[in-house]
Amino acid sequence: MAGRSVAFVKGHGTENDFIVLPDFDGELDGSVVRALCDRHAGIGADGVLRVTRDDAGYFMEYRNADGSVAETCGNGIRVFARYLEHAGLIGTGPTTIGTRSGPREVVVPPGGGDISVDMGTATRLEDAEVSIGTSSWKASGWSMGNPHLVVVDATPIESLDLSHAPAVDPPSAYPDGVNVELVEPLGERHVRMRVFERGVGETRSCGSGACAAAVAVMDVTGGLRAPYVVDVLGGRLVVDWRGDGTVVMTGPAVLVGAGTVDLDALAAG
Amino acid sequence: MAGRSVAFVKGHGTENDFIVLPDFDGELDGSVVRALCDRHAGIGADGVLRVTRDDAGYFMEYRNADGSVAETCGNGIRVFARYLEHAGLIGTGPTTIGTRSGPREVVVPPGGGDISVDMGTATRLEDAEVSIGTSSWKASGWSMGNPHLVVVDATPIESLDLSHAPAVDPPSAYPDGVNVELVEPLGERHVRMRVFERGVGETRSCGSGACAAAVAVMDVTGGLRAPYVVDVLGGRLVVDWRGDGTVVMTGPAVLVGAGTVDLDALAAG
Repeated sequence: MAGRSVAFVKGHGTENDFIVLPDFDGELDGSVVRALCDRHAGIGADGVLRVTRDDAGYFMEYRNADGSVAETCGNGIRVFARYLEHAGLIGTGPTTIGTRSGPREVVVPPGGGDISVDMGTATRLEDAEVSIGTSSWKASGWSMGNPHLVVVDATPIESLDLSHAPAVDPPSAYPDGVNVELVEPLGERHVRMRVFERGVGETRSCGSGACAAAVAVMDVTGGLRAPYVVDVLGGRLVVDWRGDGTVVMTGPAVLVGAGTVDLDALAAG
Repeated sequence: MAGRSVAFVKGHGTENDFIVLPDFDGELDGSVVRALCDRHAGIGADGVLRVTRDDAGYFMEYRNADGSVAETCGNGIRVFARYLEHAGLIGTGPTTIGTRSGPREVVVPPGGGDISVDMGTATRLEDAEVSIGTSSWKASGWSMGNPHLVVVDATPIESLDLSHAPAVDPPSAYPDGVNVELVEPLGERHVRMRVFERGVGETRSCGSGACAAAVAVMDVTGGLRAPYVVDVLGGRLVVDWRGDGTVVMTGPAVLVGAGTVDLDALAAG
């Protein structure tokens, strides 16, 4: 740790984990992100959340572990909000955080409870066919700022092989890639899902994916727009598709540790 | 990070990565180790190196990511030595570090270069058959303080499926489990290998495994006892089986970052 030190915080939301960079003043390019997120030669995470500011307040600059730029991240924004509150940069209650897909309102309750985030309006995208091995399903296309294909019933999801990206047909429907959610109904307003995130692979959770999954199920089943419980591998999220069309997601956000990382050691290792 | 804070350093040797705990004064039980090493809900590592002291000096208390106690770890002891030197607890040159398999001499060169560690004497263990899928090989049993089965030529190793533990026959040969090394000769005194560590799975590197592999190859081929280059997925190690029977391993040790981790957040997450 004799080289260029950068402060970091490590946190997760439903085990979707992030490195928060509060005071990073270099260029957050893909190689730095990849080195930080490397789970053996770096610190390790699904992505990096850089804390910056715009005219309206705090802005979350987000990149996936592979260095690619992403529009937003529903679990990441809760971890980002938890960091801001913990650092005394915001208070409890509602706050607006800027993201590449626009401003997002978060609500941080007193006492460390689950954080809600307004994920914006769900909009329809093109449907497509999703295949894993010899299984194929029709999937509903939804955007939560980023694109998702949701298979509303892929029961049983436990045995699905998500070690490779599911095939999407026609490939031309999503030329920049797409996140794929595989859903299994569990009961009244309660599903579980697995997710394959573009640029990452299968993850323990994906917040925008949980929103897209709940919205797609409500849309297909014509169900009431009331809070839906979405269980992911890493925990539980609650998704509320409100009457005004916006989607609010509520879930845990945990700060695990903090410290400094040596960028020169990362490059050398 | 309002809870019980513990200082940690993250480091790796050939991408075999560790959480070093310098000032941990609680009980380092399996549940704490598993929570720290969890790559999504914790910090993430292959194992934990607790810095303690015995009558002779510094002592490395080592546990694998699954919480199990291990006798020693060749990559871990280099990272441990790098930490001691970086923290000013030892100088450059030779130092003896205590481990559960006895004292080990390390040599830390000035200027941050590769660290050598005396891994002790290699001793013969029972041979057995190792199988992966439909492939089977006779494997040489060697102890480097911990048990290893080495397949001295499993060419080509790149395509082997190490997502599950290789089968060992007879299972009674290693009732407490065994590390398995799959070796591919590359040239004069140069091999590469993959390793399945008991209690962990396939890792980017295993120091004692690299020693066992080089020793097994030298033993089977009747080759000169001179330094052997062993390439692992995470980098390069040099193994020297000396005339007095002891094995000295040399390789990189990198400290990536340091900070504090919140044990209460780990437990809650």
